Amino acid sequence: MAPKEFPSLPDERLKEIVHQLTQYGLANGLIMYPPAPFLENQPVLAPVTLFPTPFPREEFNKSLQIQKIYNKLYANIVAEQKWLTNVIEQLSQHDVEFTGRLWKSFLNAKQEGIPQNLSLALTRSDYMFDEISQEIKQVEYNTVSVSFGGLSHKVGSAHTYLNQLGLYSSFGSERYYTDNEIPISESDKRLADGLFSGVEYYNKEYLNGENKSIVLVVVQPDERNAFDQRALEYHLLNNYGVVSKRVNLPDVLKSIKIDSHSKRLYYQNWEVSVVYYRSAYSPAEFDSPDTWECRTVLESSMAIKCPSLLTQLSGSKKIQQLLTSHEILSKFIDQAEIKQIETSFCDIYPLDNSVNGKIAKKLAFEKPQNFVLKPQREGGGNNIYKEDIPEFLNSIPEDEWEAYILMDLIHPTIHKNLILRNGEILTDGIVSELGVFGSYLFNEKTGEILDNQVLGHLLRSKTSTSNEGGVAAGFGCVDNPYLY
Amino acid sequence: MAPKEFPSLPDERLKEIVHQLTQYGLANGLIMYPPAPFLENQPVLAPVTLFPTPFPREEFNKSLQIQKIYNKLYANIVAEQKWLTNVIEQLSQHDVEFTGRLWKSFLNAKQEGIPQNLSLALTRSDYMFDEISQEIKQVEYNTVSVSFGGLSHKVGSAHTYLNQLGLYSSFGSERYYTDNEIPISESDKRLADGLFSGVEYYNKEYLNGENKSIVLVVVQPDERNAFDQRALEYHLLNNYGVVSKRVNLPDVLKSIKIDSHSKRLYYQNWEVSVVYYRSAYSPAEFDSPDTWECRTVLESSMAIKCPSLLTQLSGSKKIQQLLTSHEILSKFIDQAEIKQIETSFCDIYPLDNSVNGKIAKKLAFEKPQNFVLKPQREGGGNNIYKEDIPEFLNSIPEDEWEAYILMDLIHPTIHKNLILRNGEILTDGIVSELGVFGSYLFNEKTGEILDNQVLGHLLRSKTSTSNEGGVAAGFGCVDNPYLY
Repeated sequence: MAPKEFPSLPDERLKEIVHQLTQYGLANGLIMYPPAPFLENQPVLAPVTLFPTPFPREEFNKSLQIQKIYNKLYANIVAEQKWLTNVIEQLSQHDVEFTGRLWKSFLNAKQEGIPQNLSLALTRSDYMFDEISQEIKQVEYNTVSVSFGGLSHKVGSAHTYLNQLGLYSSFGSERYYTDNEIPISESDKRLADGLFSGVEYYNKEYLNGENKSIVLVVVQPDERNAFDQRALEYHLLNNYGVVSKRVNLPDVLKSIKIDSHSKRLYYQNWEVSVVYYRSAYSPAEFDSPDTWECRTVLESSMAIKCPSLLTQLSGSKKIQQLLTSHEILSKFIDQAEIKQIETSFCDIYPLDNSVNGKIAKKLAFEKPQNFVLKPQREGGGNNIYKEDIPEFLNSIPEDEWEAYILMDLIHPTIHKNLILRNGEILTDGIVSELGVFGSYLFNEKTGEILDNQVLGHLLRSKTSTSNEGGVAAGFGCVDNPYLY
Repeated sequence: MAPKEFPSLPDERLKEIVHQLTQYGLANGLIMYPPAPFLENQPVLAPVTLFPTPFPREEFNKSLQIQKIYNKLYANIVAEQKWLTNVIEQLSQHDVEFTGRLWKSFLNAKQEGIPQNLSLALTRSDYMFDEISQEIKQVEYNTVSVSFGGLSHKVGSAHTYLNQLGLYSSFGSERYYTDNEIPISESDKRLADGLFSGVEYYNKEYLNGENKSIVLVVVQPDERNAFDQRALEYHLLNNYGVVSKRVNLPDVLKSIKIDSHSKRLYYQNWEVSVVYYRSAYSPAEFDSPDTWECRTVLESSMAIKCPSLLTQLSGSKKIQQLLTSHEILSKFIDQAEIKQIETSFCDIYPLDNSVNGKIAKKLAFEKPQNFVLKPQREGGGNNIYKEDIPEFLNSIPEDEWEAYILMDLIHPTIHKNLILRNGEILTDGIVSELGVFGSYLFNEKTGEILDNQVLGHLLRSKTSTSNEGGVAAGFGCVDNPYLY
């Protein structure tokens, strides 16, 4: 089935859409801070599309259906600690700056003692719909600081609002989309549900079920995307009566204490059940040794980390590349599960001295137009695309190539849509990336999964001339699917 | 019972309260536009107190209990059309500029024909707690464009949030107030309920019960308080599926049409059931004759006006003054009802040639420190206080004095509190004004009241050195009671 045509509307109508969308978004917290320096009391509307973007319903549903398998897969990877640490140790020799330091933090924590076997993950699996295979293809699986679950609900509500006002219809008073065609993500509430699974376990286990522990949200200083994070905190308090406290990553050690005997973690006068990182995922954050020290100290406390260092490391691109091997994948999930997720895999190659690695090194220079080169680190802005790959590889020593993976480019549909950004409308075509949120609470030692949830969706779009999709990084915007 | 002491907290804690309050407020739409010129996508946090302000619980409850009597009283005044129009006609000779023009608009509409007998009022009765009598005293009864019902809910939620975080307690982790001590106003949802009573009636009467008419919100251009109004619109859509459309008062005639036969009102392709004015209450709005023409034309349509011209005029200060006469009051409500509301009356005097008027003219010059002089028009910034009264009266011809009323000053308690305004903290003592929202749908011809509701509360505060309390006008802030 083909999607309905993109509504063609007169300029005056577009102006009204911008006006209504702007006020609705501001009234409902669809906001972020502008690039620093900014004043705390002067946010702006988050960049957002004027219309929902077509996405095939079947593939959308599939992305939600397979999330629990992905959750299980990555929990099992962490539980196979010997295998995982072996991969990471190798990788850390090539990606010294980031993977290497996370790995060292883990080793230090291990030496100190890691008293808490339970670990919580809030993850997001990102896909593009590939025009050639007509299937979703996984871009990456994020295991730390997944963002925009708070804003996703609001953009779905905003598009629904515009639709209810009749503004998408040529007549101006009818609903262009049925309600069923615009799914509203409940990821803002659901991610709070995910966090609560960790809090609840801790309270039962260590506080006789008394609901008095808090979530310590470890953030970056001057966070532009604070309101996305706040949405989760407010739901956690409203729906579960659980307080969150925010602390900047570099300042953690000034404000916490750990009981030397019980290893319980305290912030001010509160006991912390879950340490929730919305930070610690990019090399730039770790400018000072103090920051690494924070990560190590928190890891050695009794609080449940979201994520633990091992869970964070399981999200390395290298792992994603290894999982494209059926043999490796079979170590973690069964054949029926593999069958459900493997069609969402892209071809991914290592750039090492293995057989596949040698093939990949050749491909990177001979057919660079088919690939994207990705480093280990998270966050937009670091990938190298197509014809830029050979020059980039030539600019670094060959023994550093192993820190990267070479990935088949996905061919997303370019859709018409308009992006509202800083009060201006961008009119290029757009490509979209669908994210599905999940959470799992599990025992890293035994592999037992105590809780496994699917937590809603996110659509991010970017102008088709831009290669990167990070919204906070300034290249894209939040969007919502129109399902067809 | 005395209120708990105002919490005395270190500077660092106040900083955290400001930080948490700012982000909570911005995330939840506790916002307004800064003074013009402003960009539509750059709102600021509404001015707000850091703490809830003490208010005696009994008097708070009483204010809610008597609202239905006030609603009935003012509905009955409008139904006594002969009496009301007699008063207004007189008044319009002295207040030519405003009351006079509203009155003329009414006469023009009457000549044209006013086909709709039903009228909807969303009102707000404002009180101060008077230290001397230990009772609430009514400042005024507003019958047009009552504001801050949308934001009131949000400030109550914000104070509750800060309390839940433990920030008001010296220890930093306990609730300083019980939940029961901070009432959260539901006025945002409830005012939408009030509007819906009119929509529902219209749909039943004229559209076979089909829920397809809209509310036309007639606003001022460049409205700073748009988000307060929006909160009602969004609730109306979410809770009742009723669309609102906003139109600037001066532009109304360009975008509506009235069927010459049925007198039904249409905006674009929508049929309008309720015309909701968030405008048309201040002389400055009526710069062009077109604006008066708009008011007349809409009055002559079948749509239910909120408020009608007569209902708006019933809120004149002159009426409030006349109602202080027991004899007059007895025309509209019974003795049991009078008993319940009369303790909330202030002494109010006319400045005319009646016996009372002559006394008042003397008092205004001899004991001006006991009085405030008020013109007919709504909105802050127009009152003359205490020692300024004689000079002001001397500056205008005596036959214009009749356009004013002289009112006993209320002696409100000055409380400690801090106001956050444009990122700065104001540390003066504050005085507060409690507002109670009400709605009534009634037949202006027969006096039949079809619906009578109490719709929640509002507390506004201002620094005690400022005489005026308009929040949008820039002198005060939104607040919420702590009940003791």
